[in-house]
Formats: sequence, C-alpha cells, structure tokens
Amino acid sequence: MRIVVDAMGSDSNPLPDVEGAVLAAREYTGTDIILTGVEDAIRKELAKYDTSGLNIQVVHTDQTVTMEDKPSRVGRAKPDSSMAVGMRLVKEGKADAFVTAGNTGAALAYATLHELKRMENVMRPAFPGIIPIKGRRVILADSGANADCRPEWLVQFAVMCSAYAENVLKITNPSVAMLSNGEEEGKGNDLVRATVPLMAESGLNFIGNVEPKDAIQIAADVIITDGFTGNVFLKTLEAMGSLMLDLLRQELTADIRSKLGAALAYPAFRRVYHQVDPFEIGGAPLLGVNGIVIVGHGRTNAKGIKNAINQARQAVSANVLEIIRERMLTQKKSRPAADDAS
Amino acid sequence: MRIVVDAMGSDSNPLPDVEGAVLAAREYTGTDIILTGVEDAIRKELAKYDTSGLNIQVVHTDQTVTMEDKPSRVGRAKPDSSMAVGMRLVKEGKADAFVTAGNTGAALAYATLHELKRMENVMRPAFPGIIPIKGRRVILADSGANADCRPEWLVQFAVMCSAYAENVLKITNPSVAMLSNGEEEGKGNDLVRATVPLMAESGLNFIGNVEPKDAIQIAADVIITDGFTGNVFLKTLEAMGSLMLDLLRQELTADIRSKLGAALAYPAFRRVYHQVDPFEIGGAPLLGVNGIVIVGHGRTNAKGIKNAINQARQAVSANVLEIIRERMLTQKKSRPAADDAS
Repeated sequence: MRIVVDAMGSDSNPLPDVEGAVLAAREYTGTDIILTGVEDAIRKELAKYDTSGLNIQVVHTDQTVTMEDKPSRVGRAKPDSSMAVGMRLVKEGKADAFVTAGNTGAALAYATLHELKRMENVMRPAFPGIIPIKGRRVILADSGANADCRPEWLVQFAVMCSAYAENVLKITNPSVAMLSNGEEEGKGNDLVRATVPLMAESGLNFIGNVEPKDAIQIAADVIITDGFTGNVFLKTLEAMGSLMLDLLRQELTADIRSKLGAALAYPAFRRVYHQVDPFEIGGAPLLGVNGIVIVGHGRTNAKGIKNAINQARQAVSANVLEIIRERMLTQKKSRPAADDAS
Repeated sequence: MRIVVDAMGSDSNPLPDVEGAVLAAREYTGTDIILTGVEDAIRKELAKYDTSGLNIQVVHTDQTVTMEDKPSRVGRAKPDSSMAVGMRLVKEGKADAFVTAGNTGAALAYATLHELKRMENVMRPAFPGIIPIKGRRVILADSGANADCRPEWLVQFAVMCSAYAENVLKITNPSVAMLSNGEEEGKGNDLVRATVPLMAESGLNFIGNVEPKDAIQIAADVIITDGFTGNVFLKTLEAMGSLMLDLLRQELTADIRSKLGAALAYPAFRRVYHQVDPFEIGGAPLLGVNGIVIVGHGRTNAKGIKNAINQARQAVSANVLEIIRERMLTQKKSRPAADDAS
C-alpha cells in the first residue's frame, strides 16, 4: 500500500510530518510512503532517522500552502503545491491515499474543485471530525466545511459517515443522531426540524436528536449537524478541555502540598489526558471525493501524523471509497426528489 | 427591596429554593422575600431555619410548573402557577424582581406572552447565559430562547446585554463579539455575515468575530450568537467540564498512589472547580420584558438560588430595566429600516 504524506502540512513542517511518516513506515509493515514537498528540507529531516529497509520516496514540489492561503484561490495560485501534487498522485493511481496536516480549507478546495472532484450524486463532500472519548470514537459531520447546510446534504453526510463508521472504524450498525438543543421531537432550529423526517426515512439507524452532553457520552456513533454548529461544538470541546487542563496546571503548582499531590497523581493525569487526546486519532477523512484524503490537525505531532497514516491505511483496506460510491448511487435512486446543488 | 422567589422552581423544590431564600434574606440586609408556591411545603422547609428578624412572606399557589409542561400551553393550562403569580406580583408593583429555577421555556412564555410582556420596540427578548470563568464573567446571548434568529434580533440582544454588562456587572465599555467558526472577516455562516455589518454600525463596542477558544478566554464581554448555536455552546462547555471532572475522579481513585496524590491536591481541585462552577452566578436574566426576571439552573443548590437573588438585587439597584427601555427606544430611532417581527 502506498500513502502520500504532505511533508509541508503541519505548523512545524516538515519535522512532525517526516518523523510521523518514518514511524508509520516502521510500524505498519508493507506501507510505502511518498513525501511531497521541498526535497532538501525533507532529506535533511529524513537523515535524522534510521530508514534502512523502509520504502520512503520524496517527490519534490516548490510550492507550499500556508495558513494564509485563501482556499478559493489556492488552486490557481499554487497548482503544484505539495498538497496538489500529493492528491494528483492519488488521482493518477500512483498512490492509495493522501495525508496532510495543512490548511483544511485548501485541502477541501484542491480535493473538491481541482484534483479528485466530487463523487457522482454527492451534493457536498462531508468533512467529519472524529472525537476520541474514553477509548471510543464518535464521528461528527459537518465539522466546518459547509457553514450553511441544506437538509438533503445532512442526510448525505449521515450516509457517508455511517459507511465510514461501519467499514473503517468497524462499528456494527452505527447509530446516527442530530445534534440539537434538546432531545424532544420538535426541538432544534428550522434546519434540524426539516432534516429529522428525512433522516427517519433514510434507512439509516437514526435514533433522533441528542444534546451535546449525550454526544460526548457517545449516545450515537455518528452525530450530524451543520458545519457552523459542528465547528463551534468541536472547538468548544477542545477549548474547554484546554481550559480545564490549564486551570489544573495553575492550581497544582500553586503551593508545595498541591505540587506533591500532583507529582503522585501524575500517571492518573496522563491517563485522563490520553482519553481526550485529539492526536490519538490523527486526522479526519474527507468523504465524497474520488480519493482517500485524511486531514490532520495543524498543531499535530509525529504521533498524530503516524495515526493519520494508519487511518488512511484502514480506509484503503476497508475499500470504503467504493462502498461510499455505491451507497451514494443507491441513496440517489431512493430519493429522486432531492435536487442537486451542483 | 422585595424579591419574589419561585419556591417550586428547582428540580429538588422546594428545598434549595427555600434555603437559598433564607440565606439571601440573612446576607443581604434590607431584602424582603416573597416565596410563591405550595404553602404547607414551604412552611415545612422554612421551619428548619432560624428566620427571626427576616422578612419572608409566603403567597400560596396550587399550580406548579414541571419540566414536562409545554411552554406554548403553560399560560392557559396553569394561569396561577407559582411562576405566573410571582411574575404578576412584579407586574403589579408589589415586588421588584422575580427569581425562579424552574422550566426555562415556561418562564419565557409567562414573561413574554402573559405576565410582563415585551418592552416597546423589542423584537425578541434576549435570554443570555452568564459564564463564570477565572473570576470573570462573560454574557452570551442568545442562550436558547430563539433557535432561529434574524440579524436585527442579534443586534438588539447585543444592545440589551451591553446595557446589562455595563450597569449590573459593572464592566466599563463592554466589548461585543459574534461567536463564529473563525475570526477572519468573511468567516461565519450566512447569519453571522449578515449581522456583522449591522453590529459595526450599531454604536456598540463591537470587536468582530471570536472563536469558542477566545470566548472562553473572555476576548469579549458580550458574545452574540443565535439561540441554537448558543445553547449548543453552553451545553458543550458544561458537558466537557463534567467529562473532565468525571475522568479525573475515575483516574484519581484508580490506585493508592493516585488517591494519596488526590487527597493532597484536594484544595487545588476545589479551586479549579470554583473557577468554573455554574452556581457561582446563580442565574441568567431575561432581558427585554417589563420586569426583572432571573432564571436559575434546575439542578441548582441553595447557594445558586442565593446568588440568583443577589443578581436580581443588583439588577434592581442598577435600574437596568429603565436603561434597557431607553436604549431600545433610541436604537429603534437610529435604525428605522429594521422591521418589527411582532
């Protein structure tokens, strides 16, 4: 299996990107890596590790996408960036999947508009977040790609995320819920109320509305919401988690007694952190385009990149691309009224 | 000053409601309390405390609002509940403010439709949440009363919340921001993008968009969003805070070493909890109706009720009702195009 990794993706590129690729090549036997990006910088990083016996190639690119690049312009401004070239290798069948920790908007734009393109019948690709909680995983879509959504898009997100949960995360008959401000029928905003009846007749394992509390307790495997709310939800989780850790750090170093207690309890704190560590997952899949793309967090570390590569491997092994393609064709047939928003 | 307290409000009513009222009457000299609700039950609770020298009256009501009561029907179904009678005392000038920890939707319905009514020019009342973070407070509106909002409503929420922040929370020139999925101009959903220009010309101290992280770090004193997103945001904060505390509790009791560390660090944990304790605030004000109403959390304790009563006292002292009434009249004049959604 061949995975392309954008070496210029993360905020600290190419350090964690290259190290993560080396770790993955070592740990996952039979995984060849292609690194795209500035060759000199990549070779310099690679030289730090023992890569004997590993199949790691480098494809040089001059252009690098930054966080300042506007997604709407990146395709024209940087047609041969490490991101674009990486996806092109997938499109041309020279690699099986693409992993990047770079500018998410740019990755979406390259994938959707320039390189891989949307699958047939897909109105909007879904960009779910995968949240690690207490050793389990919940998929939440949309995580921010589509701020304003239509009910039909949300149903498609649910179909694609269910397929991913079932085949890649190996969750049997994944349950699907709408994120809402209350569980009761009739709660929600206009979008939620318009989507619920469509979900109910979608053939998915739809269980109704869930509140944030239930989403965090994994009351459902797949949580669906518009990209604005989903983005706020995910960023609030992260921010509140950080705030709690910051407050703990501050108070546990405030005096000798607390410091001693903290030292003793350190392994317990590590276990807590481990259960909510976003880098345990590594990345989020872009679903509904003609290729497997995993987008990691810009602030990722090498472990995050390695885990994102592993997620790409699992997606390839599960043949999830073909499964989603087929479901989107079937979904369309069973719902001829859904108008296309292309 | 006379504050009416709904004795049948909280989930454990009338226990914390009555105890909180007694604590407030004791602590805040010159505060008379009127308790509304089932007299026998209230008297039984009152008998547990030394109330000598305190002015606590009871106004008996037969009807009690429960969490199952539908807001849309409660006005007709229970016209003389402890909530309705409490608000009526305020309307008739027999009390200065009303405090309840009961069904929020019912409180909104009674206040808006039946008892106090909207102020002139107010399109929708604002129901902000007040978030305690690191000893400071941030007001977030709407917290859930209006799931779908129009840009003009959001501007009015900002005007009312600014007035409250300035006069009740004593924040000089409070800054106002829109909650968004990114700080950059042009980020946000359709509603955010339509609201930003109106905010910019509102005369408020509008500083632009903030992400959840910035909201939590109190980058602005007043955070504005639609009631769906605001409700999800607040519930996610609460749920993530609880999850972190649960995980800590679980891991810190997992073995002897952790238990010992936790015992030593206990005061530090208390200080952390204290900085994010929702009952420190007590309640949220309902703004834009003709009376001061503070709605507390159903799961509140006596301290929460006491703090909600204190908030009501501060709102009365600050004469915030008249200030908001005047600002809403001025705001209307400066914006003749804003159509009324009555």
